[in-house]
Amino acid sequence: MRKSTNITWHNSTISKQDRQSHNGHKSCVLWFTGLSGSGKSTLANAVDHTLHHKHCKSYVLDGDNIRHGLNKDLSFKKEDRQENIRRIGEVAKLFVDSGLIVTTAFISPFREDRETVRRMFPDHEFIEVFVDCPIDVCEGRDPKGLYKKARNGEIPNFTGISSPYEAPARPEITIRTDELSISQSVDKIITYLQAKKIL
Amino acid sequence: MRKSTNITWHNSTISKQDRQSHNGHKSCVLWFTGLSGSGKSTLANAVDHTLHHKHCKSYVLDGDNIRHGLNKDLSFKKEDRQENIRRIGEVAKLFVDSGLIVTTAFISPFREDRETVRRMFPDHEFIEVFVDCPIDVCEGRDPKGLYKKARNGEIPNFTGISSPYEAPARPEITIRTDELSISQSVDKIITYLQAKKIL
Repeated sequence: MRKSTNITWHNSTISKQDRQSHNGHKSCVLWFTGLSGSGKSTLANAVDHTLHHKHCKSYVLDGDNIRHGLNKDLSFKKEDRQENIRRIGEVAKLFVDSGLIVTTAFISPFREDRETVRRMFPDHEFIEVFVDCPIDVCEGRDPKGLYKKARNGEIPNFTGISSPYEAPARPEITIRTDELSISQSVDKIITYLQAKKIL
Repeated sequence: MRKSTNITWHNSTISKQDRQSHNGHKSCVLWFTGLSGSGKSTLANAVDHTLHHKHCKSYVLDGDNIRHGLNKDLSFKKEDRQENIRRIGEVAKLFVDSGLIVTTAFISPFREDRETVRRMFPDHEFIEVFVDCPIDVCEGRDPKGLYKKARNGEIPNFTGISSPYEAPARPEITIRTDELSISQSVDKIITYLQAKKIL
């Protein structure tokens, strides 16, 4: 009796491949990394929007839904920043397993932390998107007034000002948001997903 | 220029309602709670399987994908067990926000921890499923040999043996897995989802 229950359980487990096939596309994480103000969230949401209208299943993880929820217990000190990125990586992995294309929009300034996340995934499922924008342009945008505060010394360890940003060495995709429009940037990412037969 | 970018961002954010409408059903968490061996994982996977074949978007969170991933840094001591449940609740919330019906299969023995998770959700999105099965039946099944080890004192704080299980006071659904077949149990849950117009 117990044995047959176990067999039923195994038979009734839906695999990642089942979910992907159901959705009509493969799943992956688009990991956006870049300076504050580089356009990560804007772009991640624009890609998500485009995917949604193509009837793909997708989701965005960003500060809005992570910082005050799952990671609200974490500070900005080094080990907590690592743990922040690790948890986001693990949650992204669950979303990929569920068949979704998940975009993540976090500065994630340290190469080591991003590489830790990359190693959680098979090669083709982790797509690092370097949102590349000169710091003076980011600082000129300063949508949340954070650069101003950082320059005044009100925010310690601010990436690009008082803490380093380690640019990806070999990102799958680089987007120059000071040169491309949002629409052109989205097109570049969608084209990549099509070329890799994810869509 | 910055302003127009912000407007684009807001316009292009996909809401939970957009995602639900896209999927053709509402999203919610089915929170399975019960003793080890009560059938939580079996049932959660069977419900997920049925939803999948009804072309619903769903996912299962259980020990297999949480313990060695997101929550691998947590021990079994009290504050870590609380944090374990909190994080699962937060991840479930993200899945509900992404439009999926997410089932969670964890003993979650303490009422207070489950109530903490319940409070994260609007009323209709948190559905507590009490997987009710007498401990002697669970112990008779003992699929992983854990009761045997617990009786031998090899596992401290084992729910039902050396640590309490606090049954839900007002669960949305109760399933007696010693009385109903898997198929009958699944039917009961699907019928509930239909009655609540989630499906």
